[in-house]
Amino acid sequence: MKFEVTILGSSSATPIFNRNPTAQILNINEKLYLVDCAEGTQQQMLKFDVKGSRIDYIFISHLHGDHYLGLVGLMSSMHLNGRTKELKLFCPAPLKEIIDLQLKYSETKLHYPVEFVFTRTDSPDVILDNQDITVETIPLDHRIPCTGFLFRQKKRLRKLIKDRIEELQIPVQYYTALKKGKDYEANDGTIYKNEVLTTDSAEPKSYAYCSDTLYNPKYFEQITGATLLYHEATFLNDMVDRANQTHHTTALQAAQVAITTGAEKLIIGHFSARYKTLNELLDEAQTVFPNTELAVEGKTFVISE
Amino acid sequence: MKFEVTILGSSSATPIFNRNPTAQILNINEKLYLVDCAEGTQQQMLKFDVKGSRIDYIFISHLHGDHYLGLVGLMSSMHLNGRTKELKLFCPAPLKEIIDLQLKYSETKLHYPVEFVFTRTDSPDVILDNQDITVETIPLDHRIPCTGFLFRQKKRLRKLIKDRIEELQIPVQYYTALKKGKDYEANDGTIYKNEVLTTDSAEPKSYAYCSDTLYNPKYFEQITGATLLYHEATFLNDMVDRANQTHHTTALQAAQVAITTGAEKLIIGHFSARYKTLNELLDEAQTVFPNTELAVEGKTFVISE
Repeated sequence: MKFEVTILGSSSATPIFNRNPTAQILNINEKLYLVDCAEGTQQQMLKFDVKGSRIDYIFISHLHGDHYLGLVGLMSSMHLNGRTKELKLFCPAPLKEIIDLQLKYSETKLHYPVEFVFTRTDSPDVILDNQDITVETIPLDHRIPCTGFLFRQKKRLRKLIKDRIEELQIPVQYYTALKKGKDYEANDGTIYKNEVLTTDSAEPKSYAYCSDTLYNPKYFEQITGATLLYHEATFLNDMVDRANQTHHTTALQAAQVAITTGAEKLIIGHFSARYKTLNELLDEAQTVFPNTELAVEGKTFVISE
Repeated sequence: MKFEVTILGSSSATPIFNRNPTAQILNINEKLYLVDCAEGTQQQMLKFDVKGSRIDYIFISHLHGDHYLGLVGLMSSMHLNGRTKELKLFCPAPLKEIIDLQLKYSETKLHYPVEFVFTRTDSPDVILDNQDITVETIPLDHRIPCTGFLFRQKKRLRKLIKDRIEELQIPVQYYTALKKGKDYEANDGTIYKNEVLTTDSAEPKSYAYCSDTLYNPKYFEQITGATLLYHEATFLNDMVDRANQTHHTTALQAAQVAITTGAEKLIIGHFSARYKTLNELLDEAQTVFPNTELAVEGKTFVISE
């Protein structure tokens, strides 16, 4: 099952050096999930050929402008482009008030329904559970209420061993039971154990999105073993005092999160405008966690094929 | 005195085909005035090297998102970039409520003061009068309250005829009076008429910004004789019914406004997403008003040198 993330924005606070503030698009089994939506996300979507009509879920981590100021524009464009299907919006509760006020004064009545699911920061919540994934909030430690999001692929059914199934001439109506792990009893009474008829499906993959946050072990357990961890890395570690003060993380700390929680791979992003080039941030993270890459606009990271 | 306008966005409603929604930057005597501020205006400013720190005045025509959704992001960036000097914001009153709500939930207290001047649509108002210009609102006819803005250069003082002044050895302390039109009495009692000592300064130039509006003669008198007229031209004239219905103007109608009001030059903009290329819009306007140009991102139009 396709499970990948494309970076639409990697900058913190302001657009600069051709970097846009935070937005990411997940393609999970050909459905699109937008994670944060900074100003200019629409323009980035045009640039990287992401169709708004394919997005059914939007997740907003918190109400700093560099994570949501593109949302009302995107929602308006969906409206103008004739959208009628529901949009699900996972966000801090006050965002509804902000959206409603803007729609009120522009005298816009959206042609499609929006279902709001409000995030909380007191404990992790499963906020979405569909046929492909579950999504949990990750309560983070920022200056204002902020959650990350943990996307977990669902365990797929077992796979039939075709040759064996054909050889035994097992009727089609037994396939689903076999995929679910049942044994098979042939007409002659012979019992075939499930493990000789099927193989296990791949282990479910996961994507943990952590932005913005102070380095704080409180969320480590929840994200343990992520296939791919995105973690903000606003500063180099020589600015750790500034990171602490502003409730952000350094590249070194992001790498420490990755190694501590046993992530397979780390992407760092949310880079401060003070860094024109990003090599030093990457180098610093890789000293601790070699399998680190930079969030770069337009780059796609595959979580599972 | 420098008086020029640079187009930052020419699209209506949504960003498309590398066109951004509406924003323009005026340079008047090396002060910058931002007119409308769609989503992505910050990014356009970076692209065309416009410094936010040089903007002291922002004018918002109305509260459709394609004219103001970039404002809170720009204001936040000004804050993050250390601005302390006042920003004057001319806009419909509810914009203050929208901005205040967003600053509240991001827990942002701007480091610089913002002076709001609320626009009205019942009659034209002079909303700014400084040493270089006056600015009047132009009440337009749109679906929601909307004003254009008329920027009028102030009449400059008369210019001294240097050769004549030196020949007569007129002392420096008389210069200001001469520039203001006074005659000069020499020590021997001879009266020199002002017109032999000075020449008139150039006629003041003006820029009329009209977006968004139904074609409606009610604002024609006010903008008569504009040096440069920007007028929205959302559609071709074969869509005039749609233009009427949505309170927009066609390219042909924009040209009719220009010819009726005696503009020297016309820029058309605010192009619908249905037009991938703009030649037809330009051709249509030029059949009526040949001195028409297209609003194109990054293009600067000189109103006076």
